Amino acid sequence: MVAKRPRTGGKDKVRKKNERCDREMVSQSFVEKITIIQNDSLNGAVELTKRTLKAIKKEIERATNLKEELPELIQMLSLVHPEMASIAMIAKQLKQYVEHEEDEEELKTRLQKELEQLGQEITTREQQTVEMLCTELKKYKSIMTISSSTTIRTALAMIPQKEREKEIYICESRPLLEGQTLATQLAKMGYKVKLFVDAAAGHYLREVEAVVVGADTIFRDGSILNKIGSLALALLARKYGRPFIVAASKNKLSTEAAENYGFYIQEKPAEEVYPEKVPNLTVLNIYFDFIPKELITTLISK
Amino acid sequence: MVAKRPRTGGKDKVRKKNERCDREMVSQSFVEKITIIQNDSLNGAVELTKRTLKAIKKEIERATNLKEELPELIQMLSLVHPEMASIAMIAKQLKQYVEHEEDEEELKTRLQKELEQLGQEITTREQQTVEMLCTELKKYKSIMTISSSTTIRTALAMIPQKEREKEIYICESRPLLEGQTLATQLAKMGYKVKLFVDAAAGHYLREVEAVVVGADTIFRDGSILNKIGSLALALLARKYGRPFIVAASKNKLSTEAAENYGFYIQEKPAEEVYPEKVPNLTVLNIYFDFIPKELITTLISK
Repeated sequence: MVAKRPRTGGKDKVRKKNERCDREMVSQSFVEKITIIQNDSLNGAVELTKRTLKAIKKEIERATNLKEELPELIQMLSLVHPEMASIAMIAKQLKQYVEHEEDEEELKTRLQKELEQLGQEITTREQQTVEMLCTELKKYKSIMTISSSTTIRTALAMIPQKEREKEIYICESRPLLEGQTLATQLAKMGYKVKLFVDAAAGHYLREVEAVVVGADTIFRDGSILNKIGSLALALLARKYGRPFIVAASKNKLSTEAAENYGFYIQEKPAEEVYPEKVPNLTVLNIYFDFIPKELITTLISK
Repeated sequence: MVAKRPRTGGKDKVRKKNERCDREMVSQSFVEKITIIQNDSLNGAVELTKRTLKAIKKEIERATNLKEELPELIQMLSLVHPEMASIAMIAKQLKQYVEHEEDEEELKTRLQKELEQLGQEITTREQQTVEMLCTELKKYKSIMTISSSTTIRTALAMIPQKEREKEIYICESRPLLEGQTLATQLAKMGYKVKLFVDAAAGHYLREVEAVVVGADTIFRDGSILNKIGSLALALLARKYGRPFIVAASKNKLSTEAAENYGFYIQEKPAEEVYPEKVPNLTVLNIYFDFIPKELITTLISK
């Protein structure tokens, strides 16, 4: 999910961990960069993964004792965006080198090369997924989506100007309303955009040919996590016989089994939903819905 | 649906009609009262129907030529809240007297009596429905609802203080967020309330024993209209095997066939959803969802 405003009340786990630990090896500059990435709800997984890779590369360049520093760096990565498989993938890649019997300089060179290659793979997978999605999208005169998927926006941007007669129905996407931002962007591209509250999706779904969403996580069995509200969209699409299409590259592929999806669904700041404090009133705020594979018609994923 | 803020951009159909027509019979004071009722999104159907009845009684008292005035008064009633069956019922009742061969005073007395009786019937039906709902609600430790149904709030207020350990999950209910108001009211009554965005209902529905909603209109076949988002709740309840309970008195019973429900679903002011004007971007805003009878487990209605 790509959100409009930065998270305000999120726990600064990375920084806290850093303050607790006496034998710090990683640099302050690295901690700062990672903390910014952690608190970023504005950018999607691909962008944040690229930034993470860049920060790690810089940190490896700086390191004087990589073998001792690496386990700590890996541990920090696990706290950045636990829901983003592409960042977990970097940690996994780095772990292979912790026990390597190599000298410092050799290890450094090899890691830099590996990370460079990983970055390229991530970019390639994303590009290929966007191209596949673009071909799929050309089939429909009208689609509905929720939240703001970079994959979907990029695929729509690839469609030639003269073919942009498509109607795009977008849920506003509470709590952070990033659907409003996507709606404005697509309207500027020349698409005929319709924006409405999330709860109205059931009414307007009858008017579209397909529902197309991104995914924040793809589980091994093909189930996904995506912006809350996606589960209702999938059920409504099923009810009206419309395809429910998910587009997300294998960068989002989780190593977790689908039944452990609860791990990714964390409580977010209550103020994003309702700012007042009232006794007996608990304000709940989560970002993700679990959509079981049987509700997904097509998974477009390279 | 009971909404928090008054409608701002709604078309003043009653007043406009009044300005167009040269041979006005009804009083300016009546037109003003009816216009206020028309623009009221704060109060529920029962309250607005009572106010309408009161205004009509006053107008009949004032009238000097009831037989000529009645058709116009009836026509105005059809524009007040077309989605409220209880107001349509008054119009229907009055229509019977248009062709009556009675003298002015006799007709006046008879109409006053009929309207008085109708008012009592409306109150009684509502009270009995609330009592039936109260008995039903005692069965569940946790329920979910959307919007702010007066029937549900009154039934919950009837449950004794010491039995208010119930957990009540409430959708915030965009666009006007009247769910927030209900959540605060029920928390003050001592219930343990959980509030969340409409799109998160699918996630939290697993935690409740039943979904309970009001209705703005009941069709003859048992299908209903209720706050948008209700259709998704009904589908989610079905998916998780939870009962979907509707509580609304027969005051809401429409004479329309269910398939004509589109008549009740009108576009509301776009600014309530998104205030900015962007070329190519249409902001859609509706208040009601149609829920077919096969998705309703129980209809509590006197």
